Amino acid sequence: MYIVKSVEEMQAYVKQLKAEGKSIAFVPTMGYLHEGHVRLISEARNNNDIVITSIFVNPLQFGPNEDFDRYPRDEARDIDIAKENHVDILFMPDKSDMYPSDQGIHMDVTQRCNVLCGKSRTGHFSGVVTVLVKLFNITLPDYVYFGMKDAQQVAVVDLLIRDLNYPITLIPVATVRENDGLAKSSRNVYLNEEERQLAPYIYKGLKYGQKLVVDGEKNPANIVKEVKNYVSNQTHAKIDYVEVLNYPNLTPVKQINNQVILAIAVYFEKARLIDNLVINEDGLLSESIL
Amino acid sequence: MYIVKSVEEMQAYVKQLKAEGKSIAFVPTMGYLHEGHVRLISEARNNNDIVITSIFVNPLQFGPNEDFDRYPRDEARDIDIAKENHVDILFMPDKSDMYPSDQGIHMDVTQRCNVLCGKSRTGHFSGVVTVLVKLFNITLPDYVYFGMKDAQQVAVVDLLIRDLNYPITLIPVATVRENDGLAKSSRNVYLNEEERQLAPYIYKGLKYGQKLVVDGEKNPANIVKEVKNYVSNQTHAKIDYVEVLNYPNLTPVKQINNQVILAIAVYFEKARLIDNLVINEDGLLSESIL
Repeated sequence: MYIVKSVEEMQAYVKQLKAEGKSIAFVPTMGYLHEGHVRLISEARNNNDIVITSIFVNPLQFGPNEDFDRYPRDEARDIDIAKENHVDILFMPDKSDMYPSDQGIHMDVTQRCNVLCGKSRTGHFSGVVTVLVKLFNITLPDYVYFGMKDAQQVAVVDLLIRDLNYPITLIPVATVRENDGLAKSSRNVYLNEEERQLAPYIYKGLKYGQKLVVDGEKNPANIVKEVKNYVSNQTHAKIDYVEVLNYPNLTPVKQINNQVILAIAVYFEKARLIDNLVINEDGLLSESIL
Repeated sequence: MYIVKSVEEMQAYVKQLKAEGKSIAFVPTMGYLHEGHVRLISEARNNNDIVITSIFVNPLQFGPNEDFDRYPRDEARDIDIAKENHVDILFMPDKSDMYPSDQGIHMDVTQRCNVLCGKSRTGHFSGVVTVLVKLFNITLPDYVYFGMKDAQQVAVVDLLIRDLNYPITLIPVATVRENDGLAKSSRNVYLNEEERQLAPYIYKGLKYGQKLVVDGEKNPANIVKEVKNYVSNQTHAKIDYVEVLNYPNLTPVKQINNQVILAIAVYFEKARLIDNLVINEDGLLSESIL
């Protein structure tokens, strides 16, 4: 595995790979790799000549009161995990190389954005698409892999690729969970012991909402209310949102008669956790979501 | 020469060329090709395996009161000119293929922008960078060629490529002029006979300003005043601006002691014409401007 730190070196290397006709898979991450990332990497590994994984905690996508400074980092461990999972190139650029000066080109997202996490995280998706445009231009991937845990991010990346005509195929990968159902997340390390015991009720709440749809409930307002009650009763977490929206357009739903996302975000003391299910009108999990 | 209309077809073709290791030159135009464009194409032709020229009158870069509808078009003639000049692929997409729906990703330019033409053409450069990002992602060029007549556009493209890490080299190409000095422009067809006689004084005004620098004048305000007087006295065109700015940063200049642009825009009855010179502190034309 090559570890590349410089943007310039990465671009020279990719240029050579493209000229050799290699198919390039790209798995962008913010590091602190867990089994969710490993699933993305192995999907990429199974279907491409070259797998590039990046580790870059992108300051642009964190709000002023968010956890940029304390976001968990462990370079040595990340390098081991990338190696073990047969990544070809681990791209670990410095902030000063990614953002050498103030950006004079700004990007803004105006669709799929002002709902779910985008509502409370002002500017978050502007930062996400800015760093992704840069990373896409640096790594020139044929395929990119994103985890469905951040389903809104998948929807925005889908929009980005389509609106800006990137010659890239987006592969959404199913969320990886702990045995008790908690979605794997770098931010799970923020949970104290008691919170860790309660956190699986986030997923259980989603499954409860899904069961309501299976049993015939098609009114999203009722499902939202029931899931909120369920999670509030089972945990002391503060609920940021429970929403039912069309997916991937993330537009409002009056009656569930098409693919929707049932999504939740809750605050524990030091962690904001998110999770979701994408289901069809019968409440069954979608197999092909984009 | 292949004529390609579909975005999808263009992307499939380019993918194949990249896999063969071909170097791709791209010359984006709005059509109604003249010798200025031909100069761009021949520079591209001399230095690359593949030359792609696009013809697309981009609605996003025209303001509501500008000349989008009456912008001159002549497809048959453009095709002949492209063929004669050994373009490999002429890309002529439809508006509905370039913008199938409202864009959910917006781009904005915040540097090099609120001066010169950017001042009076609100949103113009947002439209320019949006279409260029799309065209770059569709044609994947190694080199792009832009004419120095629109020097601010060259400065903004330089910013775009650098800020978003495009693996592209920008080649600025010197302005091509009529024998009497008038810069070649698709918009020159808007001039009536009398205006066509007077239009060369735009360039003569710039040369006069340049001579002032050569003779030792380093105060931009004096040069601006003298050039405005000169052009006003020689024509009845309305002056939009005469400016001296650092180039390519397009920041204000107190004293000319580095590379600057001396730029002008004037209104005739149906035409707004622009021209410029990029000179060093001694008033000599810059050879390597970026």
